[in-house]
Amino acid sequence: MLSEYTITTQRESFYDITRQVCDAVENAVAARGITDGIAVVYCPHTTAGITINEKADPDVVQDMLIGLEKAFPDRAEFRHREGNSAAHLRASVVGSSASLIISGGKLVLGTWQCIYFCEFDPPRTRKFFVKII
Amino acid sequence: MLSEYTITTQRESFYDITRQVCDAVENAVAARGITDGIAVVYCPHTTAGITINEKADPDVVQDMLIGLEKAFPDRAEFRHREGNSAAHLRASVVGSSASLIISGGKLVLGTWQCIYFCEFDPPRTRKFFVKII
Amino acid sequence: MLSEYTITTQRESFYDITRQVCDAVENAVAARGITDGIAVVYCPHTTAGITINEKADPDVVQDMLIGLEKAFPDRAEFRHREGNSAAHLRASVVGSSASLIISGGKLVLGTWQCIYFCEFDPPRTRKFFVKII
Repeated sequence: MLSEYTITTQRESFYDITRQVCDAVENAVAARGITDGIAVVYCPHTTAGITINEKADPDVVQDMLIGLEKAFPDRAEFRHREGNSAAHLRASVVGSSASLIISGGKLVLGTWQCIYFCEFDPPRTRKFFVKII
Repeated sequence: MLSEYTITTQRESFYDITRQVCDAVENAVAARGITDGIAVVYCPHTTAGITINEKADPDVVQDMLIGLEKAFPDRAEFRHREGNSAAHLRASVVGSSASLIISGGKLVLGTWQCIYFCEFDPPRTRKFFVKII
Repeated sequence: MLSEYTITTQRESFYDITRQVCDAVENAVAARGITDGIAVVYCPHTTAGITINEKADPDVVQDMLIGLEKAFPDRAEFRHREGNSAAHLRASVVGSSASLIISGGKLVLGTWQCIYFCEFDPPRTRKFFVKII
């Protein structure tokens, strides 16, 4: 089962996509009787990524954005003509996919975990995929 | 097959969990005759992660901890009330899972590779999962 | 299906291995009729990794190498006797594997995405694996 989702980002930030991934898992359970397996969440963009982190306090995401910007700033040496090399770098650092475990028909997620789509470029319409096996 | 393991961490460090992952693979081989597939090692915490790196010289882990602390320090701008945003950031940078290949009933690991559970918070009892497909 | 590839690196850089991964997928489609699944690209080395990023402008890779070197430089405090702890760190940051989706007999890749083998040590002969499930 392959599910495709669209997300419209408002700014460089992390967007909670846990609900969509859980929906994809529920659909696979309902359609194919899959109760145990793996879900791969995949971002097909080069200045965005997928990560898993805390959902409870929105300050965590805000702090992580600050920390990524400080560690991987725009630099005078950068030559990429679009001027967004820092966004490419941050995307590779968080990674373009997340692999999750499905057990008993549900995603195995820790108490505080949620799944984030990470936008590192200005607002745009993005896609991500969820593959269940 | 889904295996769950508990680990008690003594401090912010990387803990070698290769043996547990190999055990999970051996159990799947014995119980289900799985000889080829994928193993996903998953950390359900938001201030810990999983990475694969060198086992031979313990100084590598020590140096990596220093390098992560320098790149992602605690910062005056951080507002998360628990005060551990740097730990959240380091967790997302190393990642919450590792995907490994199983071939001929064994994990495909390079000569120098081992699998690490990465603790970025003070000592606590942690869990991780190994899913074989 | 497990495919093994050899790559000879000329310097610390990212090497495009998209063609090899697509070949592995095509072989699995031809040999086993696999049309939908997951491909795991795995690097068995501890100072190299796998990442997915932009292929169109080679300046992106050059800028990412600069950004990684600035964020994770060699440091006077490092004690690993081989002197390449920064390479170990960069390898863990980009990660030792990439998980990709196969749909309709083809890799799901974004318009600008390609798959890179990331060399963080001086030139050497390297291997990587592609597992299709």
